[in-house]
Amino acid sequence: MSPSVETTPPPSDRVRLRRKPGRGHHDRATIDAILDAAPLCHVGVVVDGQPYVTPTFHWREGDHLYIHGASKNRTLSVADGTEVCVTVSILDGLVLARSAMHHSANFRSVMILGRAHRIEDPDTKRARLKGFIESLYPGRWDALRPMTDTELKATAVLSLALDEASAKVRDGGPMDDEADLSWPVWSGVIPLRTALGAAVADAHTPAGTPPPALGMAVAPIPGSD
Amino acid sequence: MSPSVETTPPPSDRVRLRRKPGRGHHDRATIDAILDAAPLCHVGVVVDGQPYVTPTFHWREGDHLYIHGASKNRTLSVADGTEVCVTVSILDGLVLARSAMHHSANFRSVMILGRAHRIEDPDTKRARLKGFIESLYPGRWDALRPMTDTELKATAVLSLALDEASAKVRDGGPMDDEADLSWPVWSGVIPLRTALGAAVADAHTPAGTPPPALGMAVAPIPGSD
Ligand SMILES: Cc1cc2nc3c(=O)[nH]c(=O)nc-3n(C[C@H](O)[C@H](O)[C@H](O)COP(=O)(O)OP(=O)(O)OC[C@H]3O[C@@H](n4cnc5c(N)ncnc54)[C@H](O)[C@@H]3O)c2cc1C
Ligand SMILES: Cc1cc2nc3c(=O)[nH]c(=O)nc-3n(C[C@H](O)[C@H](O)[C@H](O)COP(=O)(O)OP(=O)(O)OC[C@H]3O[C@@H](n4cnc5c(N)ncnc54)[C@H](O)[C@@H]3O)c2cc1C
Ligand code: HEM
Ligand code: HEM
Repeated sequence: MSPSVETTPPPSDRVRLRRKPGRGHHDRATIDAILDAAPLCHVGVVVDGQPYVTPTFHWREGDHLYIHGASKNRTLSVADGTEVCVTVSILDGLVLARSAMHHSANFRSVMILGRAHRIEDPDTKRARLKGFIESLYPGRWDALRPMTDTELKATAVLSLALDEASAKVRDGGPMDDEADLSWPVWSGVIPLRTALGAAVADAHTPAGTPPPALGMAVAPIPGSD
Repeated sequence: MSPSVETTPPPSDRVRLRRKPGRGHHDRATIDAILDAAPLCHVGVVVDGQPYVTPTFHWREGDHLYIHGASKNRTLSVADGTEVCVTVSILDGLVLARSAMHHSANFRSVMILGRAHRIEDPDTKRARLKGFIESLYPGRWDALRPMTDTELKATAVLSLALDEASAKVRDGGPMDDEADLSWPVWSGVIPLRTALGAAVADAHTPAGTPPPALGMAVAPIPGSD
């Protein structure tokens, strides 16, 4: 998924990687693919000088990432109009080496910096929430009991532009020191992935109702099971 | 895993849940179980007023959480002696309801606030790094090429006390509005979990070398596969 030599320069010095810069990427194709492959992000905001990191769902439409919650949600209220950091990480594997220090992990991650903004226009907000449902469960929005104005009012949706972002990707086996290669211990990679269990319908779902189709962020990787 | 009514009060007002407080827990048994069930955390620090959220491995020994990286790592350098937020989240399932707003997720998460501190004493640092390897791969430390002083020097380990922390846990099915229960759409839960792929030895591992035993944070859930 990622070229070994980066061709897109960092859009700012704040998102230039200092540690292991060879694992850095700033092209939108790499960034978007990671954002779309996981439904969960961690949002960093500052309250009275103290950082808070809050796990939350995210979805992407075009050049923006979106998050949602209660209109009175603290993280979303603080984030509105201020600089946040939103991070998405996927742990793809454990890397076992012959020395302790060369143990590592395979991963894909994105960090986005910028000012988040609350969407005020009700129609736009409704369209984004539809996009959220559809991104996880394509075709589901029209099958649901329609959203009410009260529900829309109770909900805040924030957008964050993808202008200042970086990706970091590691893959492959352990990078042992040459002199250690004959050390007799198992070394290699243990792949990890998110697996879906069998869908469990609740007691009110009529028998024979088809379970939902799943969107990209939660669909099983083709050939993985 | 979690009592439905919380009996342990929040240790500070900063870690008292405002949204869905009934899902909050402050007892160490609940907090420790979540920290030990996942290897990955997200560390929040503030640099020039800007929050940064960095994904990193963590491990716990007793009343402290530990993280590690390069001695020159920016996140670790900034975190030393300052207030950080470390968040661990596990996504256990997707919850599908009959109305858009009642869609949700099952999850377990912990947020820890406090001052992190770099471990200066080399023997203590070495013992903690051994603890890290052993927590993921019990019995592996003694099988590895011994760690050198240079490697130890290149590495920073930070500790964070678990004094000011909270957990939040959701489980169960959708919480639909009573009037929607007959709406004819599939509703229920799609469980998610982390699955391990088959371990892939690298080219230098002698044939017949046994693959590693796995510790709690990465072992498959009993009965899950
Ligand atoms: C699953 C996972 C586990 C990890 N475990 C560890 C660990 O245990 N120890 C460890 O030292 N590191 C770990 N890393 C890497 C870690 O996220 C940082 O990249 C690394 O620690 C360097 O941090 P720094 O603050 O010095 O970054 P710097 O290189 O100083 O960061 C400068 C800029 O580079 C970009 N950047 C840095 N890291 C990332 C990233 N992960 N994703 C996207 N952009 C980034 C950001 O824009 C940041 O502002 C892990 C990463 C992942 C995804
Ligand atoms: C996997 C996952 C996905 C989530 N998705 C969403 C989403 O899409 N939208 C949404 O609104 N919320 C989501 N949440 C819940 C979210 O993490 C917050 O709890 C919620 O948004 C309230 O945020 P707040 O800033 O108003 O918290 P407040 O209740 O104001 O926070 C006060 C204090 O409560 C504690 N606290 C709050 N949240 C957590 C937590 N998650 N874990 C441990 N302690 C906590 C902290 O100590 C915090 O300082 C998700 C949580 C998880 C784990
Ligand atoms: C199983 C145990 C371990 C795991 C899973 C692990 C994982 C990681 C990961 C994922 C990184 C980030 C690499 C990157 O930025 O791309 C890292 C960095 C680092 N680790 Fe570990 N590690 C382990 C044990 C150790 C030990 C025991 C030491 C010390 C001897 C150590 C020293 C370091 C150092 C110095 C870095 C910084 C690399 C850099 O930023 O240039 N690690 N580790
Ligand atoms: C598939 C889509 C959705 C998912 C996966 C989802 C998930 C979540 C999760 C996990 C929470 C946190 C609950 C908690 O704090 O314990 C939440 C909160 C919330 N969601 Fe959604 N949601 C979805 C769609 C929507 C939609 C479409 C709306 C708007 C109509 C909405 C409105 C809200 C509100 C108002 C809260 C705040 C609850 C509170 O803090 O009291 N959600 N959502």
